[in-house]
Amino acid sequence: MAPVKNRRILLARRPTGEPSEADFALSEVELEDPQPGQMLLRTLWLSLDPYMRGRMSDRKSYAPSVGIGDVMVGGTVTEVVASKLEGFTPGDIVEGRTGWQEYALSDGAGMKKVDPSLAPISAALGVLGMPGRTAYFGLLSVGQPKAGETVVVSAAAGAVGAIVGQLAKIKGCRVVGIAGAQEKCEYAVNELGFDSCISHYQPDLPSELERACPKGIDVYFENVGGKLFEAVLPLLNDFARISVCGLIAHYNDTQLPEGPNQVPLLMRAILTKRLSVRGFLSGDFADQQELFLKDMSRWVREERIKYREDIVDGLENTPRAFLKLFRGENFGKLLVRVAKTTEGIAAKDRKDKVW
Amino acid sequence: MAPVKNRRILLARRPTGEPSEADFALSEVELEDPQPGQMLLRTLWLSLDPYMRGRMSDRKSYAPSVGIGDVMVGGTVTEVVASKLEGFTPGDIVEGRTGWQEYALSDGAGMKKVDPSLAPISAALGVLGMPGRTAYFGLLSVGQPKAGETVVVSAAAGAVGAIVGQLAKIKGCRVVGIAGAQEKCEYAVNELGFDSCISHYQPDLPSELERACPKGIDVYFENVGGKLFEAVLPLLNDFARISVCGLIAHYNDTQLPEGPNQVPLLMRAILTKRLSVRGFLSGDFADQQELFLKDMSRWVREERIKYREDIVDGLENTPRAFLKLFRGENFGKLLVRVAKTTEGIAAKDRKDKVW
Repeated sequence: MAPVKNRRILLARRPTGEPSEADFALSEVELEDPQPGQMLLRTLWLSLDPYMRGRMSDRKSYAPSVGIGDVMVGGTVTEVVASKLEGFTPGDIVEGRTGWQEYALSDGAGMKKVDPSLAPISAALGVLGMPGRTAYFGLLSVGQPKAGETVVVSAAAGAVGAIVGQLAKIKGCRVVGIAGAQEKCEYAVNELGFDSCISHYQPDLPSELERACPKGIDVYFENVGGKLFEAVLPLLNDFARISVCGLIAHYNDTQLPEGPNQVPLLMRAILTKRLSVRGFLSGDFADQQELFLKDMSRWVREERIKYREDIVDGLENTPRAFLKLFRGENFGKLLVRVAKTTEGIAAKDRKDKVW
Repeated sequence: MAPVKNRRILLARRPTGEPSEADFALSEVELEDPQPGQMLLRTLWLSLDPYMRGRMSDRKSYAPSVGIGDVMVGGTVTEVVASKLEGFTPGDIVEGRTGWQEYALSDGAGMKKVDPSLAPISAALGVLGMPGRTAYFGLLSVGQPKAGETVVVSAAAGAVGAIVGQLAKIKGCRVVGIAGAQEKCEYAVNELGFDSCISHYQPDLPSELERACPKGIDVYFENVGGKLFEAVLPLLNDFARISVCGLIAHYNDTQLPEGPNQVPLLMRAILTKRLSVRGFLSGDFADQQELFLKDMSRWVREERIKYREDIVDGLENTPRAFLKLFRGENFGKLLVRVAKTTEGIAAKDRKDKVW
């Protein structure tokens, strides 16, 4: 087999504030044939997610930074092209973390086979993958909503938020979303069944939110931070839970916001209302993956959980697509279609479609 | 029976910032004999606690404010002087919330009999009462320390903190206290068995704390807030728990501290370290009172839990004594000995004594 030309997107430099396309570089290398114990994977789908901003920074966090000149990290759905690794044969669809590149050699570590009968394979990066797992455990295990309670979720039309809201409806809660564009709010209510969804562009967000939550807020699923959190805090009921999943409003911050320092206000609310504020990562629940997949694939089949994908074609368009996340310009799970499968499993022409 | 002259301390005005003696007024009224279904109680011990600062304010909180001209709230140990209430007879020792006064009429609501065989009766306001319950559930249920973990507690020589540290030792943890005066730190280590105790007057508190916690911090029991919390935050391990019990550094704040606004920093730490921050009140665990009393009275008997009382004599000295709490001038559970029992049960002359 001739060497494969592999196009990759590297981290060219660490961004200050909002990332730009110039922070990335496209490079091409030749990949050798897989050695015994290896397989060659062709990237079909690449997931773009807010956490990647953290990996571009060298600030200490829960996972190591991407080095300058290294391939950007990312979850992918790939197809086995050639294999000298037991258990994997050409044509297999595999989910893993092979990054922003067209091909990868893998020894199988961290790779999971995708069952194409459950859902379209790209769902392994969305509703049946990390974002779905994040929503499932973040809401059900961390937030612990009870029937009749009010659940508020920010980034309500995003890959995680949209699932959180639908799960909360399944659990019998009143669900109020906060999103950006008006069409996202309409989507959350009309397509996903939220009880209400408020645009954070509204100048009177706090009072709109208060109107939408006449019984206060029992669970807040935090994807954003900043002024959204400030609007939620006064409405929290005694014993409310905050699932801290993401803080996209702050990922590009180069300094802390101006004062006063509101930490004492937050701590006082935690004390007097007996709030529980807990951060989590989807990986913390890896040992319960089967439970998640069983529930979620059933709900997807039953159309109780719908999802929407925002698809960009071509690896070279990845940096530009990634930047949309920080401007609220994606609408649904943001994916790059890097290639189509040999068999055409995922070759249907679908774009911005609700499944 | 002639009417009883009852001296009471009223809230005269709402303080701005640190309370002063002028915020209180001493008044005397006559109490009628108990009516059928009532008993007359004579206050023996009055507990002084930081939460009382909140009740002096009209800011919305978990409990109603004391009205101007009303008797200040407070936990007491009283003796039944006369009773027309079934189940209570003169000489009974009773714990309840009869406030800053020498006598009270009660219909028995919220009153619990104290068993003098368990410990000196004043312990019903300390180690076997609200502060003990706060320490017990705040550490064990909220903080969930595991053997080998590092527990840090602020206000380490106070009524709650001293018990928290000893409970954490019983659970096999490394225990580091933060207190004010050097003698309190020495007491925590030498008398109570803490592994280390650091004075927050030290200019290099953050680095001293880091030295005392070579494996980071797994549980932080928060009684104080402010710069202590800021010193703890960077040292917290992944999955650490913060039990938010009190914030005495902030109770007299008239405005928020200067900026920058550190909330995003706190939320980022909660997310990336998967912290759990939870507020609680001892009353939230009222249904588990028996469990608490059984464990704690055994540990007190076995001298595995020691406690210290800071005793002030005379109701008229209550306001001045109360102010000590906010200056860190009390050393142990702050109590006012309002009267001695008829039988002399608690009449031993004890002051600043470790039991």
